[in-house]
Amino acid sequence: MIESQPQINSTFQFEILYQSKHSQARVGRIHTPHGIIDTPNFVAVGTNGTLKALPNHWLDELGLQLMFCNTYHLLVQPGTEVIQQAGGLHNFIQRKRPIITDSGGFQVFSLAYGGIANELKSKGTKKYTGSVLKITEEGVVFRSYFNGEKICLTPESSVQAQKAFGADIIIPLDELTPYHISDEALLDSFKRTHRWELRSLAEHRKNPNNQAMYSVIHGGIHPELRHKSCEILDNADFDGHAIGGSLGKNITELYATVQTTTPKLSPEKPRHLLGIGDLPSIDQCVPLGIDTFDSAYPTRSARHGVLFSFDGPIKIDRQIHRFEHFPVDKDCHCHLCQNYTRAYLYHLFKAKEPTAMLLASTHNVAFMMRRMESYRNQILSGLI
Amino acid sequence: MIESQPQINSTFQFEILYQSKHSQARVGRIHTPHGIIDTPNFVAVGTNGTLKALPNHWLDELGLQLMFCNTYHLLVQPGTEVIQQAGGLHNFIQRKRPIITDSGGFQVFSLAYGGIANELKSKGTKKYTGSVLKITEEGVVFRSYFNGEKICLTPESSVQAQKAFGADIIIPLDELTPYHISDEALLDSFKRTHRWELRSLAEHRKNPNNQAMYSVIHGGIHPELRHKSCEILDNADFDGHAIGGSLGKNITELYATVQTTTPKLSPEKPRHLLGIGDLPSIDQCVPLGIDTFDSAYPTRSARHGVLFSFDGPIKIDRQIHRFEHFPVDKDCHCHLCQNYTRAYLYHLFKAKEPTAMLLASTHNVAFMMRRMESYRNQILSGLI
Repeated sequence: MIESQPQINSTFQFEILYQSKHSQARVGRIHTPHGIIDTPNFVAVGTNGTLKALPNHWLDELGLQLMFCNTYHLLVQPGTEVIQQAGGLHNFIQRKRPIITDSGGFQVFSLAYGGIANELKSKGTKKYTGSVLKITEEGVVFRSYFNGEKICLTPESSVQAQKAFGADIIIPLDELTPYHISDEALLDSFKRTHRWELRSLAEHRKNPNNQAMYSVIHGGIHPELRHKSCEILDNADFDGHAIGGSLGKNITELYATVQTTTPKLSPEKPRHLLGIGDLPSIDQCVPLGIDTFDSAYPTRSARHGVLFSFDGPIKIDRQIHRFEHFPVDKDCHCHLCQNYTRAYLYHLFKAKEPTAMLLASTHNVAFMMRRMESYRNQILSGLI
Repeated sequence: MIESQPQINSTFQFEILYQSKHSQARVGRIHTPHGIIDTPNFVAVGTNGTLKALPNHWLDELGLQLMFCNTYHLLVQPGTEVIQQAGGLHNFIQRKRPIITDSGGFQVFSLAYGGIANELKSKGTKKYTGSVLKITEEGVVFRSYFNGEKICLTPESSVQAQKAFGADIIIPLDELTPYHISDEALLDSFKRTHRWELRSLAEHRKNPNNQAMYSVIHGGIHPELRHKSCEILDNADFDGHAIGGSLGKNITELYATVQTTTPKLSPEKPRHLLGIGDLPSIDQCVPLGIDTFDSAYPTRSARHGVLFSFDGPIKIDRQIHRFEHFPVDKDCHCHLCQNYTRAYLYHLFKAKEPTAMLLASTHNVAFMMRRMESYRNQILSGLI
């Protein structure tokens, strides 16, 4: 039978177990009502309440401690009412461990710019198009991609939706500022975003509901704005901080942005890097004191036949793997490596079998768990 | 680590446990080198060595006792050499339980006719088109759909491929005769098919390799030809019989064809109905003494959101299921019903999440296992 979730009986707490002596890296534990998240850690993205091609009951076994769900998508389908009736998001998707939801703002704005990746890499269009109909002090009005319905997202309505979902960690409404923007418009957006975040926090504090709220640090690639954002938000009553907004068009700008930001945040609050979870970026940002990273990259790579390994990525549909009658990684405990060979996975990809996506995705998530554990061990050993 | 298969240490045997007193239905057990198949039973189709969207290591848990793989597809991708190097098909796909392979002929011919379903229902074209290049006494030459390579399939080469794969049950090469055909051409094809089957059997007998070979009973919807086919093939040294060829354009013709065929076959040999596994047809054919049925129907239905249940099919993407916070079937032990609700599955289908296919497919296969067990119980209880 479908199990009810255990009663929520603990509140949010971040415990630092070890602080590196020669970097800002730390090993910690985030306590939430649905369990512990060891940090640094990777947060897999399950936009619609599932990772792509993986059932949720596999994720416990894989050791995934935090899952990222997108409020925007869940608002338009299945909608708040269904999730609330089910007893919250954990019950609806049958996940027993922690969940984080975003505000919905990121998707509203990024879809309007013609794609998240393009915009964040400064390749997007310069003005709002498509689904965003109006931005006012009150909030943002957009058209649902699902059924064309007009939806108004305000700081208050976003928090209320996230209350209905009941994720362990929630995010205030912010505005995704385009990379290409005039100084004046940037400053306007920057100020509005912070007013929205503080309104979100006020709404959250009315009924904390054992949820934690992380701020979203803004300011694009401008150090002085990042510092200002840290000052405003670190002095407010947030439980942690997410570094968001435009993080630059390449890993150098990302590094510089994170490097100028983390020292300005209280060390005792956990720090999440929004939407970044590729291996080179994680490698650069763990020493800068980032505790959690979210990204759809591992599962998306898997669907394209890119299998992660400690020796670098394996493009499994290359001819070289056709006769490899051994696992992708003999030391990996995932369903793929424990049961099947590279030759079989090569065959499944060539034959375009959906089973290939499932097996490759389970491996990449398992790999991310091992990789993050190895970061924790490296920090504890004084190597980072 | 990837496990090697246990040594093959038993040979094929069909044991009838109970013969119904008022129909031809029987409850039996097919013993094979990789384990037992309780009959009547359903054989799931894993064309390329996997069921669509389901990993093989789940199938043991689901109780799937026999899996049907297609020689034609496996010949073109990954090819005999890869499978042989892996130590056979069981090792390659990591299936510990029995496998049946066909000869490849069915796909060669049906693809040539512009689709299996169309042809068998008499809607196909009347002559060979596309991939079949030549049919001679020797065999059939066709072009691989995968890379355009010319491949010659003869009774001997089909059996040799099936020896390399090492399935527990194999099938002789036959010709799929079109539904629309002149009497003379029909008779020519009929005779050639039987010569091919006997050549296949002779090739198989050179090296039985602990495999069993089923004949394919032909004759279309013509009772006298079906009887003639039974006479020829039942007198040869086959281990069982598959009823194949054109089975008619509807369930009435199917029923009539099976009804005229099974009484002409030795009762002590198992009988398989090729490519038929929808629920109404199984219901009609179990009392006629069919022991096993194969079909991609349950997994294909699942991918289209049709969930099987004892109360009839559930079209899960209908609005009515949106708020159903209970399982598809509370008595079902599959991963879907044990973990998730109808409302969640509805949502996954609406959101076009690949996880939906996986969960729906696991349910439909689990349902088929329960349905076939209920037939066995009904026969044992004297109800069929």
